[in-house]
Amino acid sequence: MADRTQIQEAIKNQGEVVRKLKAEKASKEQIDEEVAKLLELKAQLGGDDGKHQFVLKTAKGTRDYNPKQMAIREKVFNTIISCFKRHGAETIDTPVFELKETLTGKYGEDSKLIYDLKDQGGELLSLRYDLTVPFARYLAMNKITNIKRYHIAKVYRRDNPAMTRGRYREFYQCDFDIAGQYDPMIPDAECLKIVHEILSELDLGEFRIKVNDRRILDGMFAVCGVPADKFRTICSTVDKLDKMSWEDVKNEMVNEKGLSEEAADHIGEYVSLQGGMDLAERLLQDQKLSQSKEACAGLSDMKLLFSYLQIFQVTDKVVFDLSLARGLDYYTGIIYEAVLTQVGVVPAPVSTEAQNGAAEETVSVGSVAGGGRYDGLVGMFDPKSRKVPCVGVSIGIERVFSIMEQKAEASAEKVRTTEVQVMVASAQKNLLEERLKLTTELWNAGIKAEVMYKKNPKLLSQLQHCEDSGIPLVAILGEQELKDGVVKLRTVATREEVDVSRAALIEEIKRRTSEI
Amino acid sequence: MADRTQIQEAIKNQGEVVRKLKAEKASKEQIDEEVAKLLELKAQLGGDDGKHQFVLKTAKGTRDYNPKQMAIREKVFNTIISCFKRHGAETIDTPVFELKETLTGKYGEDSKLIYDLKDQGGELLSLRYDLTVPFARYLAMNKITNIKRYHIAKVYRRDNPAMTRGRYREFYQCDFDIAGQYDPMIPDAECLKIVHEILSELDLGEFRIKVNDRRILDGMFAVCGVPADKFRTICSTVDKLDKMSWEDVKNEMVNEKGLSEEAADHIGEYVSLQGGMDLAERLLQDQKLSQSKEACAGLSDMKLLFSYLQIFQVTDKVVFDLSLARGLDYYTGIIYEAVLTQVGVVPAPVSTEAQNGAAEETVSVGSVAGGGRYDGLVGMFDPKSRKVPCVGVSIGIERVFSIMEQKAEASAEKVRTTEVQVMVASAQKNLLEERLKLTTELWNAGIKAEVMYKKNPKLLSQLQHCEDSGIPLVAILGEQELKDGVVKLRTVATREEVDVSRAALIEEIKRRTSEI
Repeated sequence: MADRTQIQEAIKNQGEVVRKLKAEKASKEQIDEEVAKLLELKAQLGGDDGKHQFVLKTAKGTRDYNPKQMAIREKVFNTIISCFKRHGAETIDTPVFELKETLTGKYGEDSKLIYDLKDQGGELLSLRYDLTVPFARYLAMNKITNIKRYHIAKVYRRDNPAMTRGRYREFYQCDFDIAGQYDPMIPDAECLKIVHEILSELDLGEFRIKVNDRRILDGMFAVCGVPADKFRTICSTVDKLDKMSWEDVKNEMVNEKGLSEEAADHIGEYVSLQGGMDLAERLLQDQKLSQSKEACAGLSDMKLLFSYLQIFQVTDKVVFDLSLARGLDYYTGIIYEAVLTQVGVVPAPVSTEAQNGAAEETVSVGSVAGGGRYDGLVGMFDPKSRKVPCVGVSIGIERVFSIMEQKAEASAEKVRTTEVQVMVASAQKNLLEERLKLTTELWNAGIKAEVMYKKNPKLLSQLQHCEDSGIPLVAILGEQELKDGVVKLRTVATREEVDVSRAALIEEIKRRTSEI
Repeated sequence: MADRTQIQEAIKNQGEVVRKLKAEKASKEQIDEEVAKLLELKAQLGGDDGKHQFVLKTAKGTRDYNPKQMAIREKVFNTIISCFKRHGAETIDTPVFELKETLTGKYGEDSKLIYDLKDQGGELLSLRYDLTVPFARYLAMNKITNIKRYHIAKVYRRDNPAMTRGRYREFYQCDFDIAGQYDPMIPDAECLKIVHEILSELDLGEFRIKVNDRRILDGMFAVCGVPADKFRTICSTVDKLDKMSWEDVKNEMVNEKGLSEEAADHIGEYVSLQGGMDLAERLLQDQKLSQSKEACAGLSDMKLLFSYLQIFQVTDKVVFDLSLARGLDYYTGIIYEAVLTQVGVVPAPVSTEAQNGAAEETVSVGSVAGGGRYDGLVGMFDPKSRKVPCVGVSIGIERVFSIMEQKAEASAEKVRTTEVQVMVASAQKNLLEERLKLTTELWNAGIKAEVMYKKNPKLLSQLQHCEDSGIPLVAILGEQELKDGVVKLRTVATREEVDVSRAALIEEIKRRTSEI
């Protein structure tokens, strides 16, 4: 363990790094990242003077949401939840921790990223890693065979955070899943329709939804001569195609993973293909690929999927892309991923693997949603291994937050963090009781109203507060107004003032704020 | 060493390898070799057949929320959040875990109930125990001296769960706090106004809000001859008066806590007192109590508080009760607690201490909200000990859920778990595409619509689904309707059917569902 002098030395060096970056006018992200390291080092030094010397920080890889961020978050959630509800989804919630064994064996290598709770006696517990495994546990436990549900909640991964790029150890997942034995591809198509609706409504710019099928991938690997035990690892290399050139991908396959060059070249031909229903039809005729029963089943379903997507009017954004290879082991059929294609809006290259319920995969720049079919997962929990077919999608909501926050930053319009309609104010002294009385009337009538907690606040500071927090109206009381039974109603934006009788005030405020 | 689940996982993977090799008609040697590995793995498991044997449960003291419970939860949250917003509150969010040291020393004895995370390298973390300490940390960390915020989130306590009585290890807290240096008792009064509004709107039956002041309690203990180092422990005994007789409380004070009988009897006289502003005035004249400067300050503020409560029109429910003694160390001024008084509605005696942000205290039957002023907590986090005065209230939301669930159970009215307005159905075969087409039109128009994921579902099962989930309308398509360009719109409740032209359908559905 490092001793104090070592840490102090490290702090000095790190301080130097920060100073240099600032002098060089490096990017804000870069500076922030180095400052974070510096603060962490300082935190290690901890309390020296015996006094409670709290390290004032949140845990590594986590953040608070301030009121402005919460206002944006609420708006995004409302859009997404409205869509889920439009499609008839119910919602459930599960505990933040599960029995450790519930999570074990579901995430492959990434199990090391699971947060365990300390053994304090009793059960061994872990924080949930995604919402899909708890969902499967819930279905098996309650013997539910049919449900359409959404679940928006935080999940936890001890990953290397890159917070400036929207990657956290605590982050939201926003999942919609359809469980049940149905006719093929109808629920799958609805998931894609939902992605289309949500991304359109969030207005994040141009996007594309790539689809593929686990069975097509496996069939392709088989006919290209990939040994069965290398399917998964080759699959995860293919998945890097959106970030690496084909040469690099091939190199990894051949030199790191020991695939024959011939097999790699075969794969290379397939994974360059993109199209729609036509491509599925063409591949069904492909001499090699059609030899795989699995691939054929996947391709036929792909055709069917596109026929439904046409009806749902979403084929403009959907592309059948053989290079899409999401990493999670539990996918059994169709898989998909939505990416933003307008790179301008997007921050620096971002890996959002953490956000899309994807574990081993690496995700392209701008990935904002992903999912697929997983027909075997619920069966892993059922004592009799009864299967409940499932298909679902996860919205990469943290990415969406980042983009919306950037947009808000760039826009002239102010993000309001309260919904207050009117401030009850006074220009004169000794009117606290009258202000409170009027505020009570307004609250009791359902009006969102604020009053300063001061006996004699200055009018200017009351008006300033309205400017700062975007309160549109001020109800001003004075001796004269009280005598006349009126209130001076001021519009903050225009500074217009008009006397309104106390009896008509509530209606007038409602009328004015419904216009805004 | 590998544990069972790891071995089971390995067995699964190895089984996969063997199956694939067989499917590929690999050489016998190759298959045999892999089968041998598989058998060896199974042998490691010992006696049983190596099938995954999961314990299907949630962690002790936690529960899932099913869709019905979520629908109730959403309704309750909406009521509460509306009230918070009406009073101009912003919202923030903090991570589910904090640095362990952030929580240390805030909860007295109950610190043993804190969930720690396993040390997996890096920081030592604990799950939050309430929302108040993270709030104070947030204020100090961001140097915020003024904020009115609410925070609704789950907190964690390794308590002995009594789930049938609404006590969990993971449960919601629902906090509203006002931080800032203001004129006395105005924000305090607003907190009580908020409790009054929320409990009235939730319609939980009769309630009473007890108020007291930490300074009055301490002054009372002082003038009754309680040694200063026994204030806290005697306070927590007093707090039991709503569940125990005075004799038992006195017995505990004298025999367990070593208080003199005389002091106990003195206390007994005071804690039997209840009243309003009049009582505060009377006690200011009390020969003994008026000797305590602290008590006098508390009593004067109590008078002022009641004057604001009168303006806020909530004195009908508020009672100054000298036996109220909330246990948390951090309270410095006024304290309060709301109790339901209509015992009929309430389940068996419930201690909701876990829900009200109260640690050491024990709470009366039917307690549904509590809080108080804590002027010192933020200063504990500030490197320069700068104080930020705070007052807040926590709604005992889990109790509210339990009562609402019971009410829903008892009521004839069904709790809807979706908001679907219309089901797109068909009585005839081969109309899947037409159903999907119409559903798309409805979705695109913002109508909440469902369609069965079957090619040819029976009309009866489609109608049954509407009955089951409370969908009010069915849009029925048939060959004839398609020819005529109409849809048969059926009202589920009355079974009335009427032909509506496709062009008018969306308006008609909107009209009908806005009436419901």
